[in-house]
Amino acid sequence: MEVKTEMPRVLELLVSNKNRLDKIVLDFLPEVHESAEISELYKLMRDYPSRGGKGLRGTMCLLWCSLFGGKTDDAIITAAALELFQNWILIHDDIEDQSDLRRGLPALHKKVGLELAINAGDALHAKMWELLLTNQRRLSDPLTLEILSEFAAMINATTEGQQMELAWTIGNKWDIRESDYFLMVTKKASWYTCITPARLGTLLGASQTEHKNADITTEDLLDEIVVFGTNLGIAFQIIDDVLNLTANESKYGKEILGDLFEGKRTLMLIHLLAHSDQKQKAKIIQLLSKTRQSKTYADAKYIFEKMKSAGSIDYAKNVAKSMSKKALSEFDRIAANRRKLHPETYHTTRLLIEYLTTRDY
Amino acid sequence: MEVKTEMPRVLELLVSNKNRLDKIVLDFLPEVHESAEISELYKLMRDYPSRGGKGLRGTMCLLWCSLFGGKTDDAIITAAALELFQNWILIHDDIEDQSDLRRGLPALHKKVGLELAINAGDALHAKMWELLLTNQRRLSDPLTLEILSEFAAMINATTEGQQMELAWTIGNKWDIRESDYFLMVTKKASWYTCITPARLGTLLGASQTEHKNADITTEDLLDEIVVFGTNLGIAFQIIDDVLNLTANESKYGKEILGDLFEGKRTLMLIHLLAHSDQKQKAKIIQLLSKTRQSKTYADAKYIFEKMKSAGSIDYAKNVAKSMSKKALSEFDRIAANRRKLHPETYHTTRLLIEYLTTRDY
Repeated sequence: MEVKTEMPRVLELLVSNKNRLDKIVLDFLPEVHESAEISELYKLMRDYPSRGGKGLRGTMCLLWCSLFGGKTDDAIITAAALELFQNWILIHDDIEDQSDLRRGLPALHKKVGLELAINAGDALHAKMWELLLTNQRRLSDPLTLEILSEFAAMINATTEGQQMELAWTIGNKWDIRESDYFLMVTKKASWYTCITPARLGTLLGASQTEHKNADITTEDLLDEIVVFGTNLGIAFQIIDDVLNLTANESKYGKEILGDLFEGKRTLMLIHLLAHSDQKQKAKIIQLLSKTRQSKTYADAKYIFEKMKSAGSIDYAKNVAKSMSKKALSEFDRIAANRRKLHPETYHTTRLLIEYLTTRDY
Repeated sequence: MEVKTEMPRVLELLVSNKNRLDKIVLDFLPEVHESAEISELYKLMRDYPSRGGKGLRGTMCLLWCSLFGGKTDDAIITAAALELFQNWILIHDDIEDQSDLRRGLPALHKKVGLELAINAGDALHAKMWELLLTNQRRLSDPLTLEILSEFAAMINATTEGQQMELAWTIGNKWDIRESDYFLMVTKKASWYTCITPARLGTLLGASQTEHKNADITTEDLLDEIVVFGTNLGIAFQIIDDVLNLTANESKYGKEILGDLFEGKRTLMLIHLLAHSDQKQKAKIIQLLSKTRQSKTYADAKYIFEKMKSAGSIDYAKNVAKSMSKKALSEFDRIAANRRKLHPETYHTTRLLIEYLTTRDY
């Protein structure tokens, strides 16, 4: 399979982009202040950006920019700001989701308490906008402003998705329809992982090459990307949730079955509950509703086994496969409509899209 | 006294501006969504903006805009965004400071839990930027972007000040120098209450009237405002802290002596500790270090009486008076250097500045 043998190239690209973007973020963030307390804040702000990550969002943005003939250098600040976005929102998410670990290390609020972590997240959030304002040095004012609007839309969606998921957890709500689940994942994952990075790259690329793409307006293109990215983002999230149950722990870097300990509403769980009789459903909900501390490995394993026997994991994998296929064909359709597309970038972007939904960790 | 009899006019102006700005914010914020959970998020986002407030920051911005001959209509969105800023940051501050009440009602996290409150604060934060992006419809792109930079600088300062204060509380640190206290208050209060509103108004006003002020560049003017606003902000905060101890409870709207229950580092407290012998200092710190729940009214009252007998409250009032005087003379100097200043606005702005540091609730 060509795709399989070429995957290492995509992984290398991710690593090299991530290194470049992290450097921009860390060079931009302040480091020392005459006040010891303010220097401490700077240390907290630099914590998550120093922990690495995959660099998926930034890379997606850079690729879509090149795809339409744009210069990567024009997109690099915006791509770095996407990584910065992930860092500040994860600080807050880790508090909201009561996560103990982030990339193998204690979550920030576990290290310094939630008060300082909330504040550091806000400080980092403001830095994201400030970083985006430096786009002015290279880009036109209208484009700089358009990029800011995209970030605002992304945060609107992400916080809406987070509210949905939190409300289910806090309200102990388990009767979730698939359509609600898809809306939540679209809001919480698709926008910031796929839609916004691709839209940003497109805006950055198309602004320089509008003439080459005159067969479709940038606005129509951006609408098409919403469809593409919604599907891709859902597929990505489902695969992420599947991996949480089935991945090789050392490769995956998180606690296996962690989602079952957390009581996370996943497509597998919705499928399992929909395919359980009243008695089994009650038992599963009772186990899931236990506090994290009182849940045993046997509780999680019980639900996991039920998911396997109900075919919930295969079902979720199939949904992911079908959505990933839709995303790919939407991507090809978008590509086919462009007059001049950078052929090598087309190929690499397609590989990245495939990677997002076929990765095994 | 002319000032005293004219004060009601300033208060009326604050109320009418606040109503206008709140309406802009509430009209801008979303209200309903097909998802019940997302509608609930919108409700949380509209909560603090519906609770009122003084409208000081927005009014300051509008006045400084008029002062230099700018149109109020050009500054109204920016002024509304200042009020919106206060709303989102107070949601997070109330969690960080463990405040139970906000404007006489339970703090948001007391109503819905800290998870949803953190997320609603983030959602509102993004809406602040989105609101500011609508400035594009009326203002030039460069000015729209300049305003965004001012907001970024304001949040940088505010989060730095918050880190200082939180670090003192969490670290149980009491040996605070006055210079540290002034830095903290400058960062936490002066920037968002005085410096940024005045700078924003100036940018908005001066952009239309640059020719009238050709004797000084806008950049120099903005630097002068930092000096003015630093002094005014510190005076404002000291008066706020004095009122917390001495105000008429029903007028003030917050718990009297609340800062002593909170163990807040105020100028009075720093003065008292500096003027106590080792034994008394140890006792005061021991009382202040008790948890909020275990503190009695007698504990707070004991410290309050010591402050009175050590002259700490008078000392703080005098510092506030001297800084407020500096701010006023800086304001007059700025005004005297302008060729054409709107005379009525000059008068009203001066009254507002005096109000900020002479108010009794």
